[in-house]
Amino acid sequence: MSQRLRILVIGASGVLGRAIVAELAPRCDIIPAGSKSGDVRIDIADPESIAAGLEAAGMLDAVVCAAGAFNFAPLAAIKPARIEQSPYGLGLANKLMGQVNLALAARDHLSDGGSITLITGVTADAPVAAGSSASMVNAAVEAFVMAAAIEMPRGIRINAVSPGLFEESMDSYGPFFRGFDPVPVARAARAFSRSVEGLETGRTYRVR
Amino acid sequence: MSQRLRILVIGASGVLGRAIVAELAPRCDIIPAGSKSGDVRIDIADPESIAAGLEAAGMLDAVVCAAGAFNFAPLAAIKPARIEQSPYGLGLANKLMGQVNLALAARDHLSDGGSITLITGVTADAPVAAGSSASMVNAAVEAFVMAAAIEMPRGIRINAVSPGLFEESMDSYGPFFRGFDPVPVARAARAFSRSVEGLETGRTYRVR
Repeated sequence: MSQRLRILVIGASGVLGRAIVAELAPRCDIIPAGSKSGDVRIDIADPESIAAGLEAAGMLDAVVCAAGAFNFAPLAAIKPARIEQSPYGLGLANKLMGQVNLALAARDHLSDGGSITLITGVTADAPVAAGSSASMVNAAVEAFVMAAAIEMPRGIRINAVSPGLFEESMDSYGPFFRGFDPVPVARAARAFSRSVEGLETGRTYRVR
Repeated sequence: MSQRLRILVIGASGVLGRAIVAELAPRCDIIPAGSKSGDVRIDIADPESIAAGLEAAGMLDAVVCAAGAFNFAPLAAIKPARIEQSPYGLGLANKLMGQVNLALAARDHLSDGGSITLITGVTADAPVAAGSSASMVNAAVEAFVMAAAIEMPRGIRINAVSPGLFEESMDSYGPFFRGFDPVPVARAARAFSRSVEGLETGRTYRVR
């Protein structure tokens, strides 16, 4: 830990990503990544894009994800359908399997004892209207992290961060989360630091 | 509750399904269903099969699921891939989206205050070797149940049962769950009764 850690931050241009970069940059070398911006382009929904992005990034000490798409939809509007046609498909293919595939691919690009940190959210354990996809996907990511942690090679660690609604995102997401205590995004970023710069594995850090 | 409840039991011929039927049959009219046997044929992986099976079953007071497929696979053997090509795809399409689609479709076939009860398992909250798909899928079903419960129409309730390893399944599944206390399948069946014949919703009953 005496050298500066090399960290790939996916979703580096978003509200959370910028806070993670601000938290870690004083002590780490950050490689910003994203689907539409960043030094490295990675679309987590595309396994080939993940492979190419990790190859371009070179050896890493940590991979951090602050990206993942899913749909908000009222349950009354959701009809039974196969994954490809379902409103649940976006979350399953992007925020869930995108992050799972990122973690699986990262195994070959991380130093011994390196870490993977994924993003979930408060809907994993609190239901909100129109939030059934969010709940499903966030809980699935957390359970994957718990399970994958015990099978990671070379001491590679994996954790998740589950933040509440960000104070900085109240304008866009506030209506979905009436009555929820908002949290400063800088607090969520500190949980990423705890995962990256600590030694724990298999954990979900709830920032509420 | 003075009349006998009409209950569709999917997976009625399995170890758990038979125990659920034995628990409920004295007080309820059971319609056994399954992909390969039963009075009604339903393959939960196929939304059209679900629709046809529910139509054939007629109006119901409860839908119970004791079926759901997924893969056991060591994490080291799992490579990044899109859902369709991934070892995670079976669990996502069958045990997760199969049960989600069953719940969505059941809304139109249940009496007011009727119930849906889905099956998960101990891997939702306990990691085991080769169990990352099981963990992911079971936790996703439980979070869906929590979230869908607050948006169900006409007082329709939805719960999950998360049993440990069954004493009756030790020969086949014991090696995956060394050191786990096995539970009699009759105890898991009682949790289904609690969901069907009680009034709670959004709950996961852990039978450990």
